[in-house]
Amino acid sequence: MEPIRQLALNIPATTKPRVVIVGAGFGGLNTAQSLPDEKFQVVLFDKHNYHTFQPLLYQVASAALQADAIAGPLRSLFHNRKDFHFRMLRVLSVEPGMKVVNTTAGPLEYDYLIISSGAKTNYFGNENMQKYALPLKTIPNALNFRSQLMQLFEWASLNANPDIEDHLLNIVLVGGGPTGVEMAGALSELRKKVLPKDYPRLDFSKMNIYLLEGLDRLLPPMSAKASARAKKDLEKMGVIIKLGAMVQDYDGETVTLKDGEQIKTYIVIWSAGVTGELTPGIPPEWAERGRLLTDTHCKVIGSNGIFAIGDVALMKTEDYPKGHPGVAQPAIQMGKYIGKNLDAIHNGRTVKPFKYFDKGSLATIGRGKAVADLPGNIFFGGRLAWFIWLFVHVQFLVSFRNKLLVLANWTWNLFTFDKGNRLIIRPYIRKGDERAKAVFAENEVGS
Amino acid sequence: MEPIRQLALNIPATTKPRVVIVGAGFGGLNTAQSLPDEKFQVVLFDKHNYHTFQPLLYQVASAALQADAIAGPLRSLFHNRKDFHFRMLRVLSVEPGMKVVNTTAGPLEYDYLIISSGAKTNYFGNENMQKYALPLKTIPNALNFRSQLMQLFEWASLNANPDIEDHLLNIVLVGGGPTGVEMAGALSELRKKVLPKDYPRLDFSKMNIYLLEGLDRLLPPMSAKASARAKKDLEKMGVIIKLGAMVQDYDGETVTLKDGEQIKTYIVIWSAGVTGELTPGIPPEWAERGRLLTDTHCKVIGSNGIFAIGDVALMKTEDYPKGHPGVAQPAIQMGKYIGKNLDAIHNGRTVKPFKYFDKGSLATIGRGKAVADLPGNIFFGGRLAWFIWLFVHVQFLVSFRNKLLVLANWTWNLFTFDKGNRLIIRPYIRKGDERAKAVFAENEVGS
Repeated sequence: MEPIRQLALNIPATTKPRVVIVGAGFGGLNTAQSLPDEKFQVVLFDKHNYHTFQPLLYQVASAALQADAIAGPLRSLFHNRKDFHFRMLRVLSVEPGMKVVNTTAGPLEYDYLIISSGAKTNYFGNENMQKYALPLKTIPNALNFRSQLMQLFEWASLNANPDIEDHLLNIVLVGGGPTGVEMAGALSELRKKVLPKDYPRLDFSKMNIYLLEGLDRLLPPMSAKASARAKKDLEKMGVIIKLGAMVQDYDGETVTLKDGEQIKTYIVIWSAGVTGELTPGIPPEWAERGRLLTDTHCKVIGSNGIFAIGDVALMKTEDYPKGHPGVAQPAIQMGKYIGKNLDAIHNGRTVKPFKYFDKGSLATIGRGKAVADLPGNIFFGGRLAWFIWLFVHVQFLVSFRNKLLVLANWTWNLFTFDKGNRLIIRPYIRKGDERAKAVFAENEVGS
Repeated sequence: MEPIRQLALNIPATTKPRVVIVGAGFGGLNTAQSLPDEKFQVVLFDKHNYHTFQPLLYQVASAALQADAIAGPLRSLFHNRKDFHFRMLRVLSVEPGMKVVNTTAGPLEYDYLIISSGAKTNYFGNENMQKYALPLKTIPNALNFRSQLMQLFEWASLNANPDIEDHLLNIVLVGGGPTGVEMAGALSELRKKVLPKDYPRLDFSKMNIYLLEGLDRLLPPMSAKASARAKKDLEKMGVIIKLGAMVQDYDGETVTLKDGEQIKTYIVIWSAGVTGELTPGIPPEWAERGRLLTDTHCKVIGSNGIFAIGDVALMKTEDYPKGHPGVAQPAIQMGKYIGKNLDAIHNGRTVKPFKYFDKGSLATIGRGKAVADLPGNIFFGGRLAWFIWLFVHVQFLVSFRNKLLVLANWTWNLFTFDKGNRLIIRPYIRKGDERAKAVFAENEVGS
């Protein structure tokens, strides 16, 4: 087996145990950063050469931040490491028996495999939705939405027919979780403060923002107080909220709900569900609905040397019988847990099980408006919650440079209410969008 | 004709003369900003909803600036105007006899038509070059180059075969004008200061940066002193400069020069020529090699109410018998000239002919290195020229917000030598690039 270990992917031979990490989200990044450089060779795989700060994706989508501000260049983050190796590639399969992971650039042996591949959008088999709705999981997703949104306002301003204009300005957000709530708030502020200056001849009273949630309240993982406050604040901002609303179909122009109601719209964001991203080669009995079942030490049950963390992991505990919430904190904490304990596990020492420390949940609604559930059933709404949100997010941004950029942008937005990133850098051309095809050059298009 | 005037493109009816401006580059933008709001209805057309600050495109391409920093949102720039109308569309043709311009969104009548559509890349009929080389005229062009460049380093780090690595790291810049010179300098600094930290296992002594120029000196429009200094500085930075080098072909892997020399490279920037972008419907006798012949009042000779400014215009004067240089200043000055004088022209008053005020030429080579030709045959090189360059470019950035962003980025770069924008936000997939196709998701791709 030595030759593979030496040559594959141009990773140097080593006598240290090799840890291969799949995915540079919050889980993978924190694992890599916590593993001791001198004890392990660390190999990190991702399809992108940057870490995406997902909690702020909605700000890129709503033109408050530029894309580069929420992307942390992976190689820069590890300049101080000696035996760390990032490789940009896609993982094709795992051979757990051989302890080999197969990639688009060839196979690589591992001693420990950390699967932190996150979650992908779940359309629950709705093909039309997958074809026409926009997901919001990656930076290109967010840029596609930003382009599509700005294109619609541009098309609307070309149009002298008021009936068509109504149709053009509607936006439907499916899923009342943090993404849906934060997008609804951001779009509502765009509509009130920013867009009327850009498009003085458009009637923004005809721009309806719909937020659809299948359950009976917004922000289901948060407290009932937070749900109620978010609903109240959003409704005050003019968002049309429909609870218990099940989406049946979307043909690119009309969303049809299960109860027969129809909403005309050219733009739908789908954030109503995620599913784990399971790698081929993993025995199906190791997983449940796409998520890898782990013991309380993050080890995939039944495996030899494979760990799963973050959204792709399903660790059933007494406190979290259905697994941990699919947000950044559990992924970060699991990553740190594995990174700090792997040496002890490698040497057969006893390690305490993983314990999730719930720091609380936050969702921002608008300028000076947020909801915060803090530990001990403490709830904050309004301005105080917003300052907590601001502080936490600036703290978490992965590098000083990004903090600086984000702060500069936010300060500007705060004082001017102008969001300067309303740029269609790469137009988005949806299937059959002949108008966009006629205007834009092929080599400048986003998707 | 009234119905067209009223309904077309949703532009309000008016009793004022309507000025239609095609293209929001330096010429079009300055025309629109200089025209008096109360005297004219101003309609501005562009395919993008932003103005591109072209002199800094090479900084986006070389990962020193994020895209949004050099894009000025067109609608924001005209918030204070009452009878200004931006429309995002493509102009299809002009009917000079009818005074109508046809667009992807329908026809529009004009009283005055300002053509400021700029120049496009001229491949001189070389189809292979058009297929494989990257142009550098738009922000998506620059982002495509940035992605392609970073992808090549990622592929090279997967590769254990040193022969292939040589090939992968070469870069060829065709054209020794400002774009070629500034890119060569920026890439050379990336190679020396930034990339070795990101890719500690790559041998950057094998990364050759070639700068090819067909004439016998770099920066042909500048002084001989500037040409010599740029050559000396770039060669000291390790750029391989070939003067009198005519490119014959590029098959995607090998550049072949007319003298038979071959250079292996996966990445070629073509900035060796431009040509005017002539709109269909313009009588061919009005133009010379794609550029519209104008009198000394910027009026297209033979036309009724059509003006041409900037790169698309060819005004032959005693001082500039071949027309003005294809840089920002003539376009800016012509735009201001038309904007300020159109009311007088409209009222039949006598107007002084346009006179180009040459403020000098600048090109930056690297940190603390630039060349500057100032009026009166004054030449500066080195640090002083660089400070002039810095001052001029910050001054010219179209809005305060962008100035702030660019300054924040530059300050960061200056102190850290780290360029934080080395992100492959949207991968670039060149024809036949199977490796990239295997790794990247289709809906995230740039082109």
